[in-house]
Amino acid sequence: MNRKRLDTVLAAMTRHCLDSLIVTDPSHIAYLTGYRPDPGERLAVLFLKKDGQASFFTNELFPTPDLGCPVYTHKDTENPLKDIIPAVPEGTVGIDGSWQGRFILPLLDALPGTTRPVLGSLPLQEVRMIKSEDELALMREASRRNDLVIEGTIRSLHEGIREDEVTEILKRLYTDHGLPVPAFAIVSFGAHAADPHHAGGTAVLKKGDSVVIDIGSPWKGYHSDMTRTVFCGEPTDEQKKVYETVLEAHLSAMDTVAPGIPLKEIDRAARSVIENAGYGPYFTHRTGHNIGMDVHEYPDVSAVSDVVAQPGMVFSIEPGIYLPGRFGVRIENLVEVTEDGHRSLNSYTRELQTV
Amino acid sequence: MNRKRLDTVLAAMTRHCLDSLIVTDPSHIAYLTGYRPDPGERLAVLFLKKDGQASFFTNELFPTPDLGCPVYTHKDTENPLKDIIPAVPEGTVGIDGSWQGRFILPLLDALPGTTRPVLGSLPLQEVRMIKSEDELALMREASRRNDLVIEGTIRSLHEGIREDEVTEILKRLYTDHGLPVPAFAIVSFGAHAADPHHAGGTAVLKKGDSVVIDIGSPWKGYHSDMTRTVFCGEPTDEQKKVYETVLEAHLSAMDTVAPGIPLKEIDRAARSVIENAGYGPYFTHRTGHNIGMDVHEYPDVSAVSDVVAQPGMVFSIEPGIYLPGRFGVRIENLVEVTEDGHRSLNSYTRELQTV
Repeated sequence: MNRKRLDTVLAAMTRHCLDSLIVTDPSHIAYLTGYRPDPGERLAVLFLKKDGQASFFTNELFPTPDLGCPVYTHKDTENPLKDIIPAVPEGTVGIDGSWQGRFILPLLDALPGTTRPVLGSLPLQEVRMIKSEDELALMREASRRNDLVIEGTIRSLHEGIREDEVTEILKRLYTDHGLPVPAFAIVSFGAHAADPHHAGGTAVLKKGDSVVIDIGSPWKGYHSDMTRTVFCGEPTDEQKKVYETVLEAHLSAMDTVAPGIPLKEIDRAARSVIENAGYGPYFTHRTGHNIGMDVHEYPDVSAVSDVVAQPGMVFSIEPGIYLPGRFGVRIENLVEVTEDGHRSLNSYTRELQTV
Repeated sequence: MNRKRLDTVLAAMTRHCLDSLIVTDPSHIAYLTGYRPDPGERLAVLFLKKDGQASFFTNELFPTPDLGCPVYTHKDTENPLKDIIPAVPEGTVGIDGSWQGRFILPLLDALPGTTRPVLGSLPLQEVRMIKSEDELALMREASRRNDLVIEGTIRSLHEGIREDEVTEILKRLYTDHGLPVPAFAIVSFGAHAADPHHAGGTAVLKKGDSVVIDIGSPWKGYHSDMTRTVFCGEPTDEQKKVYETVLEAHLSAMDTVAPGIPLKEIDRAARSVIENAGYGPYFTHRTGHNIGMDVHEYPDVSAVSDVVAQPGMVFSIEPGIYLPGRFGVRIENLVEVTEDGHRSLNSYTRELQTV
């Protein structure tokens, strides 16, 4: 158990008026204990009380290392909630947003009226949102290597190559640069690039296509994430205009990043550039998301975020324009909020490139 | 929308006294509509009313094919529950056991007192438990190919090979036999084999080790799953005894499988063999699980199951004995319940083998 991190979480529990907290997100548990459970459909819960008492509940099938707190096991033939129900004290109990209904609904039925269950995601999310210097060092290194992978990937592009061939090349590059092969990478050509979440298919690269490459992989458990868009052959005037608009939106949002700036203002900085250019309806997603042990962490950089940028936060700035059936452009760097402004974690060029 | 499957689910809803049902498990949705959403942390819900009305709720980022029912979209900046809350009718609403707390708890807060939310996993689970002839044909083919992969994998074993090298070999074999490379495979040597969920490490195979190989991959969306244990060099008398005990337990449970037999009796058939041989405490898990579009489906073959075997069910029979720090043995076939008994989906030998 990392006592320093636990103390920060306990303070956040107090701030959110929680008497106890059910933590189930494997990354949350790993953040606090160093142990990442992988229980599949079974139960693994780290339970925290506001006085600092912690306990861990797990199926006996999974050998648990010493966590510095009591471990309660259950068998496949037992109610997995049997030890948790009596452990919940009176008052407000926070429930992790990642926990599943098959545990939550029976627990709600079993808890006495003296407990008040509420969504309890924020204490861990808020604490993990601010990275320590050690965590930042790992994230910078992850993105430094990600820069090398995207450089090699873009260098490999040529007319006639297939999306899945590019995916294979970038997997090899990750291995070469000492990062695990990512479970997911977006490589999309032409009309595919107009779908922000297109998963690599078998389209063949041809003149006139835009190529969106959105990739990342963790270094020692901390993620990288970046996107570049290049064109096959000379881009049309419209493609150039869309690219320059997305780049201006990206840079405008980047320039805004500093402690005290609301994340919604960063979103606005990107969005207003795209709206002013007439492409507002084609920027269909949030401007970015925080990142760390998970690729998508709390909070979003979006119009509805009430969070203010603080030193130690790391998030993506990834505006895009997607013209359905035609082409798409997205440009994404990770940015770290520093004491006096920001630092981009990526340094690979964002200038318009053709292959 | 598959109307025949939907009608079966509606009948199950009536059986479970549900007026409406929130379906979120991607396999459930794929089973009913042919479309498998992959929304990450975002929301995708298929909502069913007992009168047969269906509707689909999703983030506008994910292009949805024609599902034969109305589709309601929300933006990243909107409450993802905005259209679901008013859609829930009075009465009992079932909530999918796979749905997460970050949606469930705000929904419970927003629903009026005239609705009664309950865990609603069973209707879909019970319907998917009984496979159609088409589904069974796919599962037989998946297991036929899985047999070929395990045969090739076992043939590749030799003293000095590493666990991760075996994993690479079996991945190639899956590709050769036309199945996707599985996300997960258990290859464990020696003391690792005493951990039922050991994930492939880098142990080197040496004389005296048992080798547990537990693998599967889907054929056209339907899974295979099997385990074999072999020994490196001549097994000791104890290893032979443990192997013969697990094999007898496996065969005894297999022989029991027929329509009308409670699954707990099948579990008992395996467990009593192991208990009688004095290894009861070392058989730490359920005897098996149903399987289909997911590797682990409802229900378990365990001492606490109240379900009775019915034609069209497919489940694993996988007893094991794990001697901590020393070695482990598990033998697993899939079995299909037929009108008059059962049929094993695997035919690769279960006799004791040495490499």
